[in-house]
Parts: sequence; structure tokens; C-alpha cells
Amino acid sequence: MEKKFLILATNDDGIDSNGLFHLVKSLEEFAEVKVVAPDKQQSAVGHMLTISKPLRVTKFYRNGEVFGYAVNGSPSDCVKLALSTLLDRKPDLIVSGINYGQNTSVNILYSGTVAAATEGCLAGIPSIAISLGTYDLEFDCKFPAELSSKIIKKLLNEQKLQFKLLNINIPALPPSEIKGIRVTHCGNAYWKDNYVKRVDPFGRDYYWFAGEFVPSDDEGSDDWAIANGFVSITPVNFSFTDYSLIEKMNEVSFDGLDTLSSF
Amino acid sequence: MEKKFLILATNDDGIDSNGLFHLVKSLEEFAEVKVVAPDKQQSAVGHMLTISKPLRVTKFYRNGEVFGYAVNGSPSDCVKLALSTLLDRKPDLIVSGINYGQNTSVNILYSGTVAAATEGCLAGIPSIAISLGTYDLEFDCKFPAELSSKIIKKLLNEQKLQFKLLNINIPALPPSEIKGIRVTHCGNAYWKDNYVKRVDPFGRDYYWFAGEFVPSDDEGSDDWAIANGFVSITPVNFSFTDYSLIEKMNEVSFDGLDTLSSF
Repeated sequence: MEKKFLILATNDDGIDSNGLFHLVKSLEEFAEVKVVAPDKQQSAVGHMLTISKPLRVTKFYRNGEVFGYAVNGSPSDCVKLALSTLLDRKPDLIVSGINYGQNTSVNILYSGTVAAATEGCLAGIPSIAISLGTYDLEFDCKFPAELSSKIIKKLLNEQKLQFKLLNINIPALPPSEIKGIRVTHCGNAYWKDNYVKRVDPFGRDYYWFAGEFVPSDDEGSDDWAIANGFVSITPVNFSFTDYSLIEKMNEVSFDGLDTLSSF
Repeated sequence: MEKKFLILATNDDGIDSNGLFHLVKSLEEFAEVKVVAPDKQQSAVGHMLTISKPLRVTKFYRNGEVFGYAVNGSPSDCVKLALSTLLDRKPDLIVSGINYGQNTSVNILYSGTVAAATEGCLAGIPSIAISLGTYDLEFDCKFPAELSSKIIKKLLNEQKLQFKLLNINIPALPPSEIKGIRVTHCGNAYWKDNYVKRVDPFGRDYYWFAGEFVPSDDEGSDDWAIANGFVSITPVNFSFTDYSLIEKMNEVSFDGLDTLSSF
């Protein structure tokens, strides 16, 4: 018997998130979906791995049925544990989301949603992160979920999933106001950092992060797409080396300066 | 009066780490050093940001003197809070380390040490992450610290810190066995994931991460340098877009498929 197309679904908002729920329901229309997700909200955890405490796995029920496995760890933990230990076979695709809050530009570094998809990509499995352009948990995720599922089916049929990692961002708009889909590059937005300083009832200072995200207006970028009502699909590739600097750095006379005595 | 060259020092092993202590002592020979570091061990936290709880800042004493500020957050939090709030002026350089455990190849994604330096780089300040090729906390960090300080002085004098982010890894060897310094590219090492399943005294399963790091043997890479006794300096640049895929992705007939009805 031919095995059904298998998708591992995860997120960083936690296994009880509506974003994940609607996504899974839409994906189940054409695929077998296994859910392994954090047991609670894990936003902004980046590529955190849990190495100094044990991970627990519990069945999570929704509407009286097992919806998936909840893990007391980060999105990266979930994917690593699922691939190495929990799943019977290698999934054909990994989908992370739908996250409340857009993950464009530099947020790729901070996002647990993208980190989970990155783990899939590092394991050699095509992976997709999906985020929504709002933090409003009341925003109905049903349409974004169905749209995501349709996009994935398109990619499967027309492109055979020939990608490593896609970062999809969907504007928080009613269907009729979404202008289309754009393949984008990662923007150069930044965070204007700010911490609000307050005093607790015991007279001690504390600080809350109150940074402001300053989106890129660079046409063709992920930020630009969202701001203009387009669904953004960014093909991601992690490249860390600044090759342009290697030659210049080699001009510094390090050679032979291997021990302290030679400095 | 001319202001002294200012360095912000941080790490991910925690403000009480010997790696940070020896590094700061070495740097103080030529610079003013301000320390803002996590109040406890934060390894493998990646680019985690603390957004859902307040940050506390406390003075940390060492040998009866204020050594620096301890923050109940991640390395990224420390740098953001230091730059936006705690420091009186913008540092000329940010140094993160010395970390116990090498941060080569894909570990750039997971490392809190590198994440702290990345925050500096994103804020437009030359930043350096420094890691040691051993997890043995008994390994004497004095020589690696002095070597790091000498390298930084060289970069300052000969290269005017014309870089964004350098990822330095130092082999855990006695000075006489270090073969030299190499400017390297980021390797393609990977983690062979494995979780050990155990049963707790109450009969419930738990999992420990027991992954194995499989270093790259690619000549000229950071992993190769460390394995061959060289200090590795990798110029880092974060580039996320897979431009090679943008054209191919555009061949998928997304255009016009903006609403569900049109699929």
C-alpha cells in the first residue's frame, strides 16, 4: 500500500493555538499530518535547544481526540525529537505555523516558527514557516490556513517541493483585500530597541522590552509585500560566511603569531 | 579629554564564568570594559529574546568589586538592554565569550555567544564572538583570553575593525601546540540528533538530548582549523535569501491565485 504524503506540523505559539489547529485541518484534506508542538507559547525563542533538562512528551487532546504531541521545549526541540524519536517515518514536508505575528526580515533570526522550519531544512526535508501579519489572537485563521494549504498543494504539484526552506507571511486582511502572491527577498528591517523602566511594589527597577519593528520598504522584500497586501513567499538559504572579508582579513599579519610570545 | 576605547563584554555561560573573567581582565589592559551578562548559564538559547517577562539588572561582584551587571535574560537581551538603556555611550566594540564549547558551522544558529555578537552587529557595532574548543570548565582560560586580546589589538591597529561580526574559535590546546591563526569560512558540520529515552521514578518517560556534533573536514573551514590546531577567525555575514530559487519559484503559477475561489 502506498504511504500517504506525510507532513510534520509544529509551531511556536503552542499546541493549543488556533493558527496550528486550522492549518492542520486544512492540510489533512490531502495529507497525513502528525503534530509535535511546544506545550506552551514559545515566541522569540529563536533557535533555542533544550539541553540541560529532560523533555517530556504528552498527548494533547482537542475535541476529545488526540490532536498531537505536546513537548515541554522549544520549536527546534520539537522537530529534532519528532524526526529522531517520535515519528515512525521521515515526513515529506515540515510546516511550522501559523504564527500570530509576521516573521519578515531580521525576525528570521528570532522566530521560533522559522527555527522549527530551519531544523527541518537542516535535516534535509523541505520545510515551510507560515506567519500572519497580526498579533491579534482573535483574527480568524481559517482563510490563511486554507490559503497556505492551497499554496502547498501548488508547490507539490507544480514544483515538486524543490526548495529547502520557504518563509511565508500572510497579511492579516480579509480574503477580498489580498492582492496576490509574491516571491520575495528577505528585507532589511530592524528593531528600534527600547526598554520601559518601571519600579515594582518593592521599589526595585525592572525593564520591559518595548522595541519597535521598523519594516523595510524595499520593493520586492517580504516586508514590502505584507505592507502592500501581498502574500510573501521568501526562499531561504542560510549563508554565514562573509567571503568579501576573507581576503582583507588575510592582510592582517596573523601568520606566525600563534603564541603569545610572538606578539 | 579623549574617551577611552569602550568594549561591551558579555557571554552565554553566565556572568560568573571564568571565560568571561579572564577575557575582561585581558581587555582591560588597553580598553575600558563594561560587562552586561546573563545571571546564569544560557547555552544553546540561540537568538532568544525575553519579551513576556520583565528583566532585572543586578550588580555582580567579584573579589569585592563590581565586575558588571547581571541580567535575568539571554545574551541577546543583555546586548539590547546594554546598548539601549544601561550604557552611557555607544561601545566601540562588543565581545562575547569566552564560551566553553566551540561554536563552528551550524552552531552559529544555536549559540547564545554568537547571538550576542550578532545583536551588536545588527546595531552597527563591530562584534566578536569567542569560543574555546572544549566543554571542560577546568580548562585554563588565561591563555585563550590573552590571545583573544592580542588578536583584537591587531585588528584595531592594522584593520581598524573594518568588519561586522567575527566568529573566533580557539583550540583547547597548550600555547605551544597552537599552530597559528587562520581566516576561515563557516563549515558544513551537522548534528546527528539522538535522544536518550529514560523512565523516571514515577514510571513516566523522559528524553535527554544526546546529539553528536559531526564536524566538517572541509579544508579552510572553522571546524577544520580547530581540528588541526589553528585558531579560527570567520568573518560572518547573515544572508537569508536563496536568490537562486526566486526565479524558479516565480515559474509556479501563483499570479492571480490570490483568493481561495481562484484556486
